[in-house]
Amino acid sequence: MAYNLLKGKKGIIFGALDENSIAWKTAERIHEEGGTFVLTNAPIALRMGQIDELAKKTDSEVIPADATSEEDLENLVAKSTEILGGKLDFVLHAIGMSVNVRKGRAYTDEKYDFTTKGWDISALSFHKVLQTLHKADAMNEWGSIVALTYMAAQRVFPDYNDMADNKAYLESVARSFGYFFGKDKKVRVNTISQSPTATTAGQGVKGFDGFINYAEKMSPLGNATALECADYTVTLFSDLTKKVTMQNLFHDGGFSNTGVSQEVMEQFAK
Amino acid sequence: MAYNLLKGKKGIIFGALDENSIAWKTAERIHEEGGTFVLTNAPIALRMGQIDELAKKTDSEVIPADATSEEDLENLVAKSTEILGGKLDFVLHAIGMSVNVRKGRAYTDEKYDFTTKGWDISALSFHKVLQTLHKADAMNEWGSIVALTYMAAQRVFPDYNDMADNKAYLESVARSFGYFFGKDKKVRVNTISQSPTATTAGQGVKGFDGFINYAEKMSPLGNATALECADYTVTLFSDLTKKVTMQNLFHDGGFSNTGVSQEVMEQFAK
Amino acid sequence: MAYNLLKGKKGIIFGALDENSIAWKTAERIHEEGGTFVLTNAPIALRMGQIDELAKKTDSEVIPADATSEEDLENLVAKSTEILGGKLDFVLHAIGMSVNVRKGRAYTDEKYDFTTKGWDISALSFHKVLQTLHKADAMNEWGSIVALTYMAAQRVFPDYNDMADNKAYLESVARSFGYFFGKDKKVRVNTISQSPTATTAGQGVKGFDGFINYAEKMSPLGNATALECADYTVTLFSDLTKKVTMQNLFHDGGFSNTGVSQEVMEQFAK
Amino acid sequence: MAYNLLKGKKGIIFGALDENSIAWKTAERIHEEGGTFVLTNAPIALRMGQIDELAKKTDSEVIPADATSEEDLENLVAKSTEILGGKLDFVLHAIGMSVNVRKGRAYTDEKYDFTTKGWDISALSFHKVLQTLHKADAMNEWGSIVALTYMAAQRVFPDYNDMADNKAYLESVARSFGYFFGKDKKVRVNTISQSPTATTAGQGVKGFDGFINYAEKMSPLGNATALECADYTVTLFSDLTKKVTMQNLFHDGGFSNTGVSQEVMEQFAK
Repeated sequence: MAYNLLKGKKGIIFGALDENSIAWKTAERIHEEGGTFVLTNAPIALRMGQIDELAKKTDSEVIPADATSEEDLENLVAKSTEILGGKLDFVLHAIGMSVNVRKGRAYTDEKYDFTTKGWDISALSFHKVLQTLHKADAMNEWGSIVALTYMAAQRVFPDYNDMADNKAYLESVARSFGYFFGKDKKVRVNTISQSPTATTAGQGVKGFDGFINYAEKMSPLGNATALECADYTVTLFSDLTKKVTMQNLFHDGGFSNTGVSQEVMEQFAK
Repeated sequence: MAYNLLKGKKGIIFGALDENSIAWKTAERIHEEGGTFVLTNAPIALRMGQIDELAKKTDSEVIPADATSEEDLENLVAKSTEILGGKLDFVLHAIGMSVNVRKGRAYTDEKYDFTTKGWDISALSFHKVLQTLHKADAMNEWGSIVALTYMAAQRVFPDYNDMADNKAYLESVARSFGYFFGKDKKVRVNTISQSPTATTAGQGVKGFDGFINYAEKMSPLGNATALECADYTVTLFSDLTKKVTMQNLFHDGGFSNTGVSQEVMEQFAK
Repeated sequence: MAYNLLKGKKGIIFGALDENSIAWKTAERIHEEGGTFVLTNAPIALRMGQIDELAKKTDSEVIPADATSEEDLENLVAKSTEILGGKLDFVLHAIGMSVNVRKGRAYTDEKYDFTTKGWDISALSFHKVLQTLHKADAMNEWGSIVALTYMAAQRVFPDYNDMADNKAYLESVARSFGYFFGKDKKVRVNTISQSPTATTAGQGVKGFDGFINYAEKMSPLGNATALECADYTVTLFSDLTKKVTMQNLFHDGGFSNTGVSQEVMEQFAK
Repeated sequence: MAYNLLKGKKGIIFGALDENSIAWKTAERIHEEGGTFVLTNAPIALRMGQIDELAKKTDSEVIPADATSEEDLENLVAKSTEILGGKLDFVLHAIGMSVNVRKGRAYTDEKYDFTTKGWDISALSFHKVLQTLHKADAMNEWGSIVALTYMAAQRVFPDYNDMADNKAYLESVARSFGYFFGKDKKVRVNTISQSPTATTAGQGVKGFDGFINYAEKMSPLGNATALECADYTVTLFSDLTKKVTMQNLFHDGGFSNTGVSQEVMEQFAK
């Protein structure tokens, strides 16, 4: 069902890889709600994924950009405002990757070149996106910027590895830049802390199946799906949430505030 | 602007006193978004306020209920579902009053009868509302319940007095009951922690003007208004936020995560 | 091992029932560290427990006091300063009881007379203690007041019932009164959020064994014992923590910041 | 006054520059409490500071180490255990520096080479220290590791710039590594979030005087001094806090939980 919540709004969506991606679902929902946007991803992700299909479906263009490259981001922002015919109202940052995880390095055995690269991609990229938008004065007043994060920024999930630290940095960037973007341009910046989601990226993490199962049993409303995350993001991009800023918003069926559920307890009462 | 976000949804709204009330603005916005509801308030508040005007404007009925009375609440819920023709989708709790504040008692000089009464009205009433709804099985699946709160539950604002402790209790009830309501009925329960707002109730607090001025200067987007709070509440009652539960959501222009603003600092640099 | 950390310090200890009590262990440790104190508990608890044994062992007197009675508290404070020969340096509040839990009422089926009584005993009593001390000007500068709490104030543990809401209120009182006690008398007020502990009170909670087992597996350092809690309290009463105030301090082997442990995950990966 | 709290304990102290340093005061207090240690700092800091004086006073050796160099850290740990005659019981990380701040770059105008260098020095260095200690199995069971941090990790202080994000990362490392160090070696890892302190480093920050004045007025007990932070650190290194881990501990006279103080309000009521 659609409500025209984003009619006339323009934006950029980072990180749609394939139809399991949260960014993919969000693009579809934004399109249904009347928003227009440019899709972007790293050149390598564009080759691996099926973004052209999404672009077709949503009448949008794809501009490749490495989110760690200031030059690419400047180009992306310049071209996007040109294509969309004006300043932006929303931006979604859904980017994350740990080289240590990919290479099978434990958290207590990080290779620091990997750590630095993962931090640049997963955390610093958000600052780069924000700074590029801010310098180019590319956001409309009362625009809204969202980045996706995970609760490992607050509590330890052993297999999440250095992504936990990256997400903590990312959330801090949302607060810090949110202050300046709010003062200077009336733009809000928030992060959504989403349930573990069976995206192509998520499924690659060791022990993911056990974990998603555990989270399902711990969440009073069950895990939030990618589509539900897209719906929630739509509300944050709409004009109905203008004074929500610098927040980390849990979208997780109640997981974050459940100490233990009855179902989980039963495993330990035996 | 309206989006039909609450078309066909039914609910109860507690606490609309006059047109400055957040609950009043929320009722108006829900009406615009296609929702129908029963209005309620304590008999004494009904006499003091102008709720009939609101009822007329929003085509709704008024049922008096003392939110500390289980009997009144049972009656309210039974009649509301009858009037509205079915189970409920949303409930707004916007009730709070400190007898100590009214009587000019300092936080270090509480009269405990006053404290108990204020706690019953401001905090326990939320449990009573939830328990009544739960026992009567009066909520539809994926319904949404919101209570208004204030950040004094986390940090001290000296003049807020024992309302701080009441709000901490209220927020805990949202989490605790949110767990059970989620598990049992797929209903979500959240609190909105709103900027200081110039409602008739708010304005009665000592030093309120100085405080609202301070909060305005501390919030990168400025204080959130009653109307903006109504908009935000609409999103939480909509189907777009189904997996947000047991959360305390700051709606405050960024106040909660601002350590200090440039404007406030300038007062101390001299 | 003892360090003389509390040499010359005087105080009151609430809530020592028997040798499993955290307050009992704390009394023993304070005695070892050179502090002197008055022991107190509700008349009924005094009859049930073995406090005389503790009094003998620690050279202390016992003054019965119902912590919900202002009169009893005034008497306690007056007599304690008389017995100890001066103002107080430390106070431990280790009091809590849910009538709903005792009577087997579920959280969704509270009897509100029980709720009110449990809140008065478990939460409001802390305000009463603080207000009595403040009014009597009974604390020395740089004195320290600690209350015991549990993480259910932040996250839901279904069997913890209305004690969760009581602890949220208690922690708020620590912050609110901590502000005024700090400003007015340079006294600090904190809460310790302790691991589930096999006290006589704790063991009465339904499903306690399963829960303590779960917490042990979730805590990287294992659950904190009553004796370890006593040690930690000693540091908070010492002169080495003068600027720690209005805090809720987790003493739980890391439970609070562990999202999931390897051991718990293994139960769900099968 | 000394208590022999750290008798027989061995450790490493990073970051003592001159007598204003928190690390300097901590070294003095640890020495008084019976602990022995190796002092370390970056070669350039060693040249600028007066560490030899501290080494003399505390009977300790100085080993230069760049905390971003794994090689230097391995050498430091190997030599320290040799010099001290066994494994370590405590480590203090008091290292931080933002190149963007030094070069006068605003948060919205970061130079990313500067950002990366500042992150490596201020945040990643803590992971490197922990990983080096963990790999070398250099910590005794029930050892304690502390890093200093600042509340900008949670809330925005505009002039704190990218150090906010670095501190958020650092605090996440404390949690993440605290999990593994706890499980594997029973070692605890915490951060102390200290009041703004007039160290040589702190004083370099723009607007520092106004800020320390504001914090003083906002903190019910006033700002915590470097010496008080040293005292607090001593308790965390002692055997009395064995089950405190993965925590961020505010040591700030109550600043963190004060929404506004009477004094600050008065500036805005006029």
